[in-house]
Amino acid sequence: MGISKQIGQIIEKSSWIRKMFEEGARLKAIHGASNVFDFSLGNPNLEPPESFQRVLEQVVSEKRDGSHGYMANTGYPETRKAIADYLAAEQAIAYEADDIVMTCGAAGGLNIILKSILDPGDEVLTPTPHFVEYGFYVANHGGLLKTVPTTSEFRLDIAAFDEAIGERTKAVLINSPNNPTGQVYDASSLAALGELLRRKSDRYGRTIFLIADEPYRKIVFDGIEVPSVASVYGESLLTTSYSKDLSIPGERIGFVAVHPNSAHRKELGAALALTNRILGFVNAPALMQRVVARLQGECTDVAAYARKRQLLCDGLASFGYQFVKPAGTFYLFPKSPISDDVAFVRALQEERILVVPGSGFGGPGYFRIAFCVSDETIVNALPGFERVIRRF
Amino acid sequence: MGISKQIGQIIEKSSWIRKMFEEGARLKAIHGASNVFDFSLGNPNLEPPESFQRVLEQVVSEKRDGSHGYMANTGYPETRKAIADYLAAEQAIAYEADDIVMTCGAAGGLNIILKSILDPGDEVLTPTPHFVEYGFYVANHGGLLKTVPTTSEFRLDIAAFDEAIGERTKAVLINSPNNPTGQVYDASSLAALGELLRRKSDRYGRTIFLIADEPYRKIVFDGIEVPSVASVYGESLLTTSYSKDLSIPGERIGFVAVHPNSAHRKELGAALALTNRILGFVNAPALMQRVVARLQGECTDVAAYARKRQLLCDGLASFGYQFVKPAGTFYLFPKSPISDDVAFVRALQEERILVVPGSGFGGPGYFRIAFCVSDETIVNALPGFERVIRRF
Repeated sequence: MGISKQIGQIIEKSSWIRKMFEEGARLKAIHGASNVFDFSLGNPNLEPPESFQRVLEQVVSEKRDGSHGYMANTGYPETRKAIADYLAAEQAIAYEADDIVMTCGAAGGLNIILKSILDPGDEVLTPTPHFVEYGFYVANHGGLLKTVPTTSEFRLDIAAFDEAIGERTKAVLINSPNNPTGQVYDASSLAALGELLRRKSDRYGRTIFLIADEPYRKIVFDGIEVPSVASVYGESLLTTSYSKDLSIPGERIGFVAVHPNSAHRKELGAALALTNRILGFVNAPALMQRVVARLQGECTDVAAYARKRQLLCDGLASFGYQFVKPAGTFYLFPKSPISDDVAFVRALQEERILVVPGSGFGGPGYFRIAFCVSDETIVNALPGFERVIRRF
Repeated sequence: MGISKQIGQIIEKSSWIRKMFEEGARLKAIHGASNVFDFSLGNPNLEPPESFQRVLEQVVSEKRDGSHGYMANTGYPETRKAIADYLAAEQAIAYEADDIVMTCGAAGGLNIILKSILDPGDEVLTPTPHFVEYGFYVANHGGLLKTVPTTSEFRLDIAAFDEAIGERTKAVLINSPNNPTGQVYDASSLAALGELLRRKSDRYGRTIFLIADEPYRKIVFDGIEVPSVASVYGESLLTTSYSKDLSIPGERIGFVAVHPNSAHRKELGAALALTNRILGFVNAPALMQRVVARLQGECTDVAAYARKRQLLCDGLASFGYQFVKPAGTFYLFPKSPISDDVAFVRALQEERILVVPGSGFGGPGYFRIAFCVSDETIVNALPGFERVIRRF
């Protein structure tokens, strides 16, 4: 016996995804990377905005004493203050610096939130399809992820939540704009969810938190606005990262915001500081904390993602693919022309097109295209998409 | 009910440490920070070596496409290769790039190791006194930390390990040079530990891993060498960070090295890549990965720590304090003149001297002085140390 049984099982269970990636790597080795159309990863192809490089150089050149040393586990006061001020305007809620905890991205943020609130057996509900990592994050801290169906257009189904929430529900976790569907939950459904959570919290005599994972908030199209979760529910915990808006996912920088009206405001702050420390994050990377403090509101070229979306949607629609046009993110989640999405994804591989089966997101019968790739990749892949759908 | 019961209990139990820090903050507010002698934190006061700033500026100026994006969860191939090459020479073991996983510091490294190997109820043994976070790290992943006494000079007690290892023992975790004692375990005791672990693994029919947490490896004095753990035991997992040798603890960069002779080499590599991802680290910060790749073997000014050690040891010895002179690290762990180390630490606070009680490290009757402070802080604190020991 070597590694943990549980980890061994996860590796075993996800071996089909690994095989798919290995097949992609094999295709690239045979045909050359530029001749394989890789839509499988949410790694932004856009470079960070120019302001990022400028501020990065500035921060590095300042050479302040101790600027690479430890700070409080929650982060630099000036960074937390800059974020609180920005967020207060964005969410129309009076966030203060003490409500912000700097994290190693939103993945780090979700893990410290879950570690801070979950007791063994607690349940976390999330609408499907959902980001595949949520199940791991919840299980890491002794909880159980339960999925709740969405409507046919991937909108929140409040009746389904009403039915699913029970005495073990500790939190609802939503991700809007959504990976993998690209949908943005509208204000009225969020308000209804907030109302439902207040009612259920009263009924079960425990706070049910609403966790909003919002890394794609700034990647939206057609001038739409992402409604504020914090403004509809006081027991909400917001987490996000600068991975997508600044195109710096490798740098691992994000934050958690505790709602200033939470009845648990102070204990949540203490718990998040503790869990950030004991989970081994200790603190978010120092240099990037200084950088993002000066880049509040900055964003990469969303118009470029809008153009890619248009290219892809126009092409796929003309071949007969069915999908809900994404309102945000850089993902498209079309229906698989055959019910077996894994088989369809394999057929696309024969055209040197790499995508991820919806089954991986709790959304069988669909597949995910990450269109954060070059325009040429999209244009050159379209004939392959057409040939495959004709075969079925 | 808001936060997790378990987290609430940890916060409650550690409230005495928090109170101590709050008292320190209160003293600084009253007397001014420069008039309080703060030896409580292991935050290096030395700046990074000059080479760090030079390489950092170089890496930033290169502006390579995609250089802030995701890479494999294990890190950049070139960074892993540079580390494997350096480590192969240092440990006289043929490490390869694939054996290295880049992490968010050694704290991140320990968490992914423990998550990768522990099943519920597994025990991890560590010699006392020990770094206080180990208990949390092991508990995070369903394990139980059990402590094993050391000899009177804080050396490994192999007979005590022989007695303590049982069928639930999954790993032994050592930290040499040691926080808080500054001791370096000698080659013969490590060889004996390796031999014992082979015998016990055979007996219980399961691999008992040896985890070596080595962030202080380069901070040693009087020309001593830290013996290689990897060379005495093939089932060892090494983790370290650049926090202390490069004085960049806020940047969260380190790695885990799997022993190339491990019977579980391949599955450990897969497990570490997975746990790095699902615990929310995803990958070690990209920019710092590129920086440390070019700084293998670089170190801050250890002679400065040696000077601080001498100042402190000479002063305290002349007042009658008893201690084992540290062979490495920037910690001194003297005996408390009274058995109640917490009371003694409070008495030092009255002299505006902040240190940490040994009880916090499973070493009651002692206290820890972190001497990674300015020479003046040491010199100016000495009269206070003298006055307090005279009172008892």
